Amino acid sequence: MKVDGRHFRSIWLEPDGWSVGAIDQRRLPHEFVIARLETADAAADAIRTMLVRGAPLIGATAAYGMALAVRDDCSDAGIDRAYQLLIAARPTAINLKWALDKMTRAIMPAPPSERALIAYTRAAEIAEQDVAINREIGQHGLALIEAIAASKPPGDAINILTHCNAGWLATVDWGTATAPIYLAHDRGLKIHVWVDETRPRNQGASLTAWELGHHGVPHTVIADNTGGHLMQHAMVDLAIVGTDRVTANGDVCNKIGTYLKALAAHDNGVPFYVALPSPTIDFSIDDGIGQIPIEQRAADEVATMTGRTADGRIETVRVVPAGSPVANYAFDVTPARLVTGLITERGVLRPDRAALASAFPDRA
Amino acid sequence: MKVDGRHFRSIWLEPDGWSVGAIDQRRLPHEFVIARLETADAAADAIRTMLVRGAPLIGATAAYGMALAVRDDCSDAGIDRAYQLLIAARPTAINLKWALDKMTRAIMPAPPSERALIAYTRAAEIAEQDVAINREIGQHGLALIEAIAASKPPGDAINILTHCNAGWLATVDWGTATAPIYLAHDRGLKIHVWVDETRPRNQGASLTAWELGHHGVPHTVIADNTGGHLMQHAMVDLAIVGTDRVTANGDVCNKIGTYLKALAAHDNGVPFYVALPSPTIDFSIDDGIGQIPIEQRAADEVATMTGRTADGRIETVRVVPAGSPVANYAFDVTPARLVTGLITERGVLRPDRAALASAFPDRA
Repeated sequence: MKVDGRHFRSIWLEPDGWSVGAIDQRRLPHEFVIARLETADAAADAIRTMLVRGAPLIGATAAYGMALAVRDDCSDAGIDRAYQLLIAARPTAINLKWALDKMTRAIMPAPPSERALIAYTRAAEIAEQDVAINREIGQHGLALIEAIAASKPPGDAINILTHCNAGWLATVDWGTATAPIYLAHDRGLKIHVWVDETRPRNQGASLTAWELGHHGVPHTVIADNTGGHLMQHAMVDLAIVGTDRVTANGDVCNKIGTYLKALAAHDNGVPFYVALPSPTIDFSIDDGIGQIPIEQRAADEVATMTGRTADGRIETVRVVPAGSPVANYAFDVTPARLVTGLITERGVLRPDRAALASAFPDRA
Repeated sequence: MKVDGRHFRSIWLEPDGWSVGAIDQRRLPHEFVIARLETADAAADAIRTMLVRGAPLIGATAAYGMALAVRDDCSDAGIDRAYQLLIAARPTAINLKWALDKMTRAIMPAPPSERALIAYTRAAEIAEQDVAINREIGQHGLALIEAIAASKPPGDAINILTHCNAGWLATVDWGTATAPIYLAHDRGLKIHVWVDETRPRNQGASLTAWELGHHGVPHTVIADNTGGHLMQHAMVDLAIVGTDRVTANGDVCNKIGTYLKALAAHDNGVPFYVALPSPTIDFSIDDGIGQIPIEQRAADEVATMTGRTADGRIETVRVVPAGSPVANYAFDVTPARLVTGLITERGVLRPDRAALASAFPDRA
């Protein structure tokens, strides 16, 4: 997508043909800084320190990290060291393992002299595949937005609410929840996005607002408490969110607070869509609330906030009294009954086993 | 309630018999500072700068401000000046006008030499009346908590979720939503409170957590996004919140985000109670969503956060990208159908016109 008129992806091969560029997402939204990754160590650090984040982008970064490693040392032992190094950078990221396995399966059978070229080619394929899937999601979501636009008076904005960042910064390009939004905006539809702040890590306020703003999409940041009120007053036409995991029955695990917005959407007749690449569907489980363990993260994410002072310093301030305990559940589960549809690269699906199995018969 | 073992109210007459003490709530939760008000001007400043906040406390502060004014100048003109000064401190606070009218009706008919004594007596009555009403609310709410405790295995904590600050700091003592909690805790029931942070002004994290912690009530601060997840996993036994205005049909206007918690409570069979002194009931309107205008406040409340740095400085940091618009709706309306009961000084009432009219026949 665009940053002030210039096209960017979240990760790319530099013009030198071997080093890798990426946006340093730790500095957003206050500074736009590009990092240059020249070694597998640098790629692992980028993943570990959350210079890059978002499952698809982590996968692409790991793939390019492997390419950088093979360029330095194309031996079996070198590739094995790089695999261990990269997978240790964020052991729970399923996409990271997926990308590394895909890379090594392609690289290892080849003679050492050909391995670097294969690695770079395969890393580029992984990145391009993510872009292509997200663009497909965007096309299917665009049709939903166009249908809503057709039902409104001409000239009225289409108001879309989103939660957290399932934007292009979390992927290689387009994003998942944002892909339909960018396509609709670029086609000239009058889009306005309500951006949930998304406490405690503020990915909405700091990343989604930043990327929408710099691409030129009209948007408004709101406290997470606000969406219900907006829906009661017909100020939201549809909600689109991303997801970390969808069960075979269509239950949706996503950033904490998603369930509350889905309840409000249901209570007010607002369509609630979830955008996802199909690998996010976990056909091995049915019951999201009962079967998906919810990660608890550090208390400091709730107890403190980081931002920029009026004179430009970045400071972290504590907002909870000393001595008050804090709990930090990172995700919640939205039952399928509250989900209007799942926007996948193969179309908009009903959130139930039959619809998912029919669209992905090879996996169900 | 108690602050580290010592009993406090939010406002009090000092031992000198004329000056007024109050907790400087702007400094909480990081500093506990007592302000001494010696003039009507100081009382007006305390209201205007939010040194004191919460409708009942604003009323009591205005009443004591009038007493300070009469002590300085007991003439009709002096009283009139004080009335204008105090009401201008926060023109939209209905409790402020109510307290000032009550004061002047008592003072004006008396000869000037008796006015100061009448003013101090009446201010104390206004404060005591608030304490008595909240204690009644607490007693009725306590019965609900005791019933839930009786249904749980002995030794299990009773988990109560609350939103914003309807605590003793917002009133003269006890609070409204917190009165049942303090009574239950003081009686030895094992209470644990989930405290919603309550963005954007963070009254939960900064005030409710502070007062519960210093009184000794076990509690945990959570992001506003969290309550639904907790309810799905049976980690909330009941919710109790306060309110700014209840319609004759039982619709509840309260801090933004209350509606989302009520939806989650309803979806999970968790009782959702609203605690209120009866003057909060507005018998002149029925439909909360249609008839209650929702105040929009400054964007900076969402865009920035104030807290304490690791080295003890108080700093304000911006957490939204420069240039991103912000909306800040302060309240929302929870429809009566989602409310289990209204805890008033005359008992726990069904949220409908018949029940409210029957309990308050003189006002309905």
